Amino acid sequence: MRINADRLHESLRQLAQIGATPGGGVTRLALSSEDRTARDLLRRWLEEASLHLRVDDFGNMTGRRAGSESSAAVVMASHIDTVRCGGRYDGAYGVLGALEVMRTLNDLGVTTRKPLELVNWTNEEGVRFEPAMLASGAVAGRFSPDYVADRTDRAGLRFGDELARIGYKGDRAHRPGPVAAYLELHIEQGPVLEDAGIPVGVVEGIVGITWSEIVADGRADHAGPSPMPLRRDALVAAARMIAGVDDIARAIEGAVGTVGRIAAEPNVINTIPGKVTLSVDLRHPDAATLDRLMAALEHLARDVTALTGVTIGVNRFWTSEPTPFSTEVVDAVQAAADALGIATQRLWSGAGHDAKYMQEVAPSAMIFARSVNGLSHCEQEYSTPEDLEAGANVLLYAALRLAGIEGERISHTRG
Amino acid sequence: MRINADRLHESLRQLAQIGATPGGGVTRLALSSEDRTARDLLRRWLEEASLHLRVDDFGNMTGRRAGSESSAAVVMASHIDTVRCGGRYDGAYGVLGALEVMRTLNDLGVTTRKPLELVNWTNEEGVRFEPAMLASGAVAGRFSPDYVADRTDRAGLRFGDELARIGYKGDRAHRPGPVAAYLELHIEQGPVLEDAGIPVGVVEGIVGITWSEIVADGRADHAGPSPMPLRRDALVAAARMIAGVDDIARAIEGAVGTVGRIAAEPNVINTIPGKVTLSVDLRHPDAATLDRLMAALEHLARDVTALTGVTIGVNRFWTSEPTPFSTEVVDAVQAAADALGIATQRLWSGAGHDAKYMQEVAPSAMIFARSVNGLSHCEQEYSTPEDLEAGANVLLYAALRLAGIEGERISHTRG
Repeated sequence: MRINADRLHESLRQLAQIGATPGGGVTRLALSSEDRTARDLLRRWLEEASLHLRVDDFGNMTGRRAGSESSAAVVMASHIDTVRCGGRYDGAYGVLGALEVMRTLNDLGVTTRKPLELVNWTNEEGVRFEPAMLASGAVAGRFSPDYVADRTDRAGLRFGDELARIGYKGDRAHRPGPVAAYLELHIEQGPVLEDAGIPVGVVEGIVGITWSEIVADGRADHAGPSPMPLRRDALVAAARMIAGVDDIARAIEGAVGTVGRIAAEPNVINTIPGKVTLSVDLRHPDAATLDRLMAALEHLARDVTALTGVTIGVNRFWTSEPTPFSTEVVDAVQAAADALGIATQRLWSGAGHDAKYMQEVAPSAMIFARSVNGLSHCEQEYSTPEDLEAGANVLLYAALRLAGIEGERISHTRG
Repeated sequence: MRINADRLHESLRQLAQIGATPGGGVTRLALSSEDRTARDLLRRWLEEASLHLRVDDFGNMTGRRAGSESSAAVVMASHIDTVRCGGRYDGAYGVLGALEVMRTLNDLGVTTRKPLELVNWTNEEGVRFEPAMLASGAVAGRFSPDYVADRTDRAGLRFGDELARIGYKGDRAHRPGPVAAYLELHIEQGPVLEDAGIPVGVVEGIVGITWSEIVADGRADHAGPSPMPLRRDALVAAARMIAGVDDIARAIEGAVGTVGRIAAEPNVINTIPGKVTLSVDLRHPDAATLDRLMAALEHLARDVTALTGVTIGVNRFWTSEPTPFSTEVVDAVQAAADALGIATQRLWSGAGHDAKYMQEVAPSAMIFARSVNGLSHCEQEYSTPEDLEAGANVLLYAALRLAGIEGERISHTRG
């Protein structure tokens, strides 16, 4: 039993036309008109696959394939919203991979014991409405319906109003689940699998993330008449912080550290910057190690202040705890790949996904397909057709393993 | 013979009200309506001091006090335009110091042998119309009248049109000079005199300046799923360049090096920056040493590329050669201060001034008054009344020394 790869690729191609960018990527922000057009296409596909569609109060779309038992469902999910000038696969691959699993089971007339559900989560990216993973977080009880409805974009438009505008405001009773097990298929968005020469990743959890803001307060002076020993250059201090964050992360196995955002004031060519603001993103699978990274960052700030005379404030303003996935579901993914003879590597997701919130309410895991050059959130995002096919087959086998096949012992597929 | 300090301070106070900012500074951009109001006040003061006013084709205002000889003039000049939220003294002090010299000579009935001219240069700051020192450069032959007239501000307004609008478009025949000697009184805008505990600086020249743009080209990746060894983080490379520029400048006596401007792309918290653009400003009194600084910068770029895998381009796009002032005029300033018993320090100006272009056509020098905290181009810019008075007295004595006093041997004032 295998998915129909040509059909999967053709669906990916068609969906990528909605919000297509000149550079070969996609801009399909949550609850935009492009999102509506894409949802309409997905709805048509769900109907053609005879999947019963329901839409909940956050706009999450659930397509259900009945099982022989009326039990909790095995849910396969991801999202079809994108970042600005994002790629064709981030999110879309997981939703259309799940659709392809449903279609394949239809083709073969297979009935699972547990029902299967496909979910398209609203606003995973968090680019238009912060925070990211808003709707899965709401379903998991992290965010109240009012909080979700009141999120606004940069133009001041409310989530609730935009959801109604595009015609996807549904009913609270139509939320996904109850969930027996949760599977999310996704491109890796990093270079680990490519570096290892492995097509598919078995994801053991989502790393902890902590965000800090660093403010370096020095003294703005004219670049000419200020001798070096008399300066308090906030950008020089910031530079030593940036290099230091890189050093700290490299020194601890499995850690990553990134300064992604920087703003200097007044930011003109002939003035010594008086103030620089930086973001610091630190990640690790282990919460205690994440705290150790933060301690190293604060130690670094004191060292740089001593060296430069620039005051450095470190404000840790957000932390997402590490989320280890369910051993049972991770094992099902591993067994599926093994049964298919597909080489895998165990890894942790460095990025957040809806699976993070779902793990809080149901046993969950993720499947990664190798990304070319590790690129994501850009138009150059790419995975080979072969790797996408391999990942979707692992999803199929893992879903069957978790849902069971009517009239057949699931061990049969172990080969 | 001494200037009238109270009158000088009162004139500074009145001029600072035009374009006054809530924070105690001044915004009086070149050829703005505030500039017109300030020019109108200066014109009234010139008339009250019986100085013959002429306005040239660039809007430069020259107030002339006749000498007993109809020779070339000793010119005292600066500017009354400011940067946005600039200080009360940058420029204004030099113009009103010159005015106070004229008024003092009027009070005492002194006739100089050479004529004296006061000049208010148009658009010294270059904030509204680039480049800086536009009108003095044009008088020195660096820029053509058409080039000057066609400079546009960010709103697309032309220099020529704005000059006509404020009513200060004059005649080519009314340019300053001919110039026998040129003196520019200015606040230091740096911390050297304060650090040394000296009120007045005798300026020996204007340092050479070279501006480069550095582009670090790495690879934008998601901050989570990108292990440290596989990254090409453009901001980490940029940080090592910034720290390196600081190290390079500190290693060479008299050099300064500044990264004032930085822009990272995409500049979001959870993406590794793929591209970072930096400005580098290097200054030194000696042209060969400036080239040595540039060579060190290029060597640094190669080292950082080797370390980080990030391509670093260095584009030296502008150089202003060092300008040593006239020994004769510098000596006159020194002798004036000595005669007054005012402590001085020799130094080079780290910033450009109209005196740079004037030195190309006439013997020139500058006088600096100590700046509190070395601050300039900001609302906190400040010099004490005592230091401003001392600088203006040095201007008076230096001008008399260079112009000569009718019926008296100038050596008389040497004390």
